[in-house]
Amino acid sequence: MGRVYLDHNATAPLRPEARAAMIAAMDVVGNPSSVHAEGRAAKALVEAAREQVARALGGEGAEIVFTSSATEAAALALRGRGLHGAAVEHDAVAAWVDDSLPVDANGFVTIAAPDSSTLQLANSETGVLQTLPEALAVSDMTQAFGKVPVDFLASGALMGVVSAHKLGGPKGVGALVLRRGLDLDPVLKGGGQEMGRRAGTENVIGIAGFGAAAEAAVRDVAEGRWTETEEFRNILESSIAALAKETIFVGKSVPRLPNTSCFAVPGWKGETQVMQMDLAGVAISAGSACSSGKVRPSRVLTAMGYDEATAKSAIRVSLGLETTKQEVERFAEAWGAAYKRFRAKAA
Amino acid sequence: MGRVYLDHNATAPLRPEARAAMIAAMDVVGNPSSVHAEGRAAKALVEAAREQVARALGGEGAEIVFTSSATEAAALALRGRGLHGAAVEHDAVAAWVDDSLPVDANGFVTIAAPDSSTLQLANSETGVLQTLPEALAVSDMTQAFGKVPVDFLASGALMGVVSAHKLGGPKGVGALVLRRGLDLDPVLKGGGQEMGRRAGTENVIGIAGFGAAAEAAVRDVAEGRWTETEEFRNILESSIAALAKETIFVGKSVPRLPNTSCFAVPGWKGETQVMQMDLAGVAISAGSACSSGKVRPSRVLTAMGYDEATAKSAIRVSLGLETTKQEVERFAEAWGAAYKRFRAKAA
Repeated sequence: MGRVYLDHNATAPLRPEARAAMIAAMDVVGNPSSVHAEGRAAKALVEAAREQVARALGGEGAEIVFTSSATEAAALALRGRGLHGAAVEHDAVAAWVDDSLPVDANGFVTIAAPDSSTLQLANSETGVLQTLPEALAVSDMTQAFGKVPVDFLASGALMGVVSAHKLGGPKGVGALVLRRGLDLDPVLKGGGQEMGRRAGTENVIGIAGFGAAAEAAVRDVAEGRWTETEEFRNILESSIAALAKETIFVGKSVPRLPNTSCFAVPGWKGETQVMQMDLAGVAISAGSACSSGKVRPSRVLTAMGYDEATAKSAIRVSLGLETTKQEVERFAEAWGAAYKRFRAKAA
Repeated sequence: MGRVYLDHNATAPLRPEARAAMIAAMDVVGNPSSVHAEGRAAKALVEAAREQVARALGGEGAEIVFTSSATEAAALALRGRGLHGAAVEHDAVAAWVDDSLPVDANGFVTIAAPDSSTLQLANSETGVLQTLPEALAVSDMTQAFGKVPVDFLASGALMGVVSAHKLGGPKGVGALVLRRGLDLDPVLKGGGQEMGRRAGTENVIGIAGFGAAAEAAVRDVAEGRWTETEEFRNILESSIAALAKETIFVGKSVPRLPNTSCFAVPGWKGETQVMQMDLAGVAISAGSACSSGKVRPSRVLTAMGYDEATAKSAIRVSLGLETTKQEVERFAEAWGAAYKRFRAKAA
C-alpha cells in the first residue's frame, strides 16, 4: 500500500507541466544577463515565466520580481518598514513585523491602518481566508495562490508574496508582485538583475517551472477542480467528527481554503499524531512545516483564543487535487485507530 | 553549423550528472522541514548534497549554508561588516565592501589586515588567481571552484562564496562555506532552515544538482582534464596574437584560470566585438555577465592600470571542458575576419 500525502500546504508535488518546462530549460545554456543569443534565450524563458505568473495573478498591470522563496519576497517587501502584523502570520512575515493587529476567535484580523500593515490572504494552518482592506501595504498570498482565485490588482494589496512550490512548482522559487511604480530597497545587491530590485543570476530552470505551474494551477482553479477536493475535505471532517465527538474544528464556520482541515482533540498532542500517522503511511503536519521539529503550541491557534492544550493538539490535514476519496478514507481509518489507542491509554 | 559557446565564466552548461540528480529529485515530494517520511526524504537529498559540496571544497570540517546564488552568499558573509575589498571584486562583493585595497598591474591585491578584508580567489574577467592570506575574512571562490583545486580549509579564508552554475550545476543555487563555530547574522529570516542561518524552503532540486555537479567538477579537476582546455586557450591566444600584433593580453604572465583569456585591441570596443561574434555564431563577453547591457569600461582593467580605451576594448573568452580545438579555431577565424573589417574601417 502506497503512502498517502496529505500535507500539501507544506509543499505540493511537482506538476507535470512544471516538470516538462524545467527539463526543457535545462538545455538553455546562457546566463540571462549575457547579451549574446544564448543569453537572450535564457532571458526569454525568464520573461515568459514572468508573464505567466503575472497573468495567473490577474495582474498584467503588475510587476513580478522573482526571488528564491516567499520568505525572500517577504523580506524584500517588509524589511526595515516597521509594519504592523497579526500573530497569525507565517514566520517569514512575522520576522519583520510586530504582532499588534487583533485576531478574533475566527482568525479574522482587524486592520486600522492598511498602508502600514500586512495581512495574509489565507492562513497556512487553518486555511482561513481574510478580506484585504484597500491599500494594504503587503499581503502574504502564498497559501491562497493556486487554490482560490487571486486577482492581485483587485485584492486591495499593493504588494503580494507568492511561492512556486505551494502550487506545484519547484521549491526554491518565489516572487514579489507589486503595483507599478512602487519603490523597493533591494535585499540582495550586486548585478542589476530584476530591474535592480534583486541581484543574483536567475534560477532559470526553477522560474520556468514556476511559470508553467502557475498557469496550470490557475486553470485548475478556474475549472472548479477544487470543488471535489473540498467535498473530500468535508467528508474527512465528518468522519473525524463521527469518530471523536469532542474534536474541535478550527475555521470550519468561516470562508477557508477548500483543501485544508485543522482540528484538535485536546490533550492528544499534534506531534504524536503526526508520528503515528507517518507510521501508518499518512503524511500530515502539526502547524507550519517551517517550524516543525520545534515542539510548541500553534501561535495561530493561541492568537485565536484557544488554550495551550488545544493549540498543542492541533493537526493540519491538507489535500491536493490528486487526493482521492480512498486516501481520505484511509487517513480517517488510521486516525480513528490511533484515537482509540489514545482513549484507551487515557482511560 | 552550430553555435560556439565560449562564455563559460558567465555560466556553464548543465552537467549530465546534475541533470540526472535534478530529475531524480523531482519525484521527491516532501518539504525538508516536515518530520514525516516525505519530508525526511527531501531533507536527506539536501544533506547528501551538502556533503558532496563540502567534500568538493576539501572542507569536510567546514559548514555549508546553501543559498540562492553566490550573490546571496556574499551578502550573508559581508553585509554590515564594513570589510575592505579591491576594485577587482565582482559586483556582488563590491556592493558590501569598500575598494580600498591596492591592485597592481598584474591584478594582484595587497592585503594589510586579512581579518577585515575580502579577496577573490580568481577574477571572472581575467582569470588571475590570488594567493589568499591566512585568516582572510571572506573569499569569493565562485570562479575558481570547479576549474582549479580549491582546498577551503587550507586556503586561509574563514568564509568562502561559491556558485553552482559556474561548474555545471543549475543557476539559482550557491553556498557559503565557513569554518565551524563562526557566527552569521541571517539576511533571510523566518523558518529556521539551514540551522537558523538562512530561512526559506530549500531549493531541493537545485541543491541536488549542485551536489552532483560539484562532485563531477572536482573529479574532472583531479583528473587533470583542464590541461587540454588550457592548451586550447593558449592556441587561441597564439592565433589572436598572430592576427593582431597590437593585442594586449591581460594576466598572461601570471597564474590564472586554465580556461580564461582576456584581451584587448585598443580602440575596438568590447561590446562591438561581442555583437559581431554573436552574429558569427560565437558567444563571448565583455566583462562580467551581470553588468552586461551597461556600456562602461571594465572596472577590473582600470584597477590594474589600463587606460579607459583599453578597458573598453577588452573581451573575455572562457572555454569549457567540452570546448574543442575546432571551436577555438572557428572563433579565431571569425575574430580575425571582424578584426580585418575593423582595421579597414579605421584606415
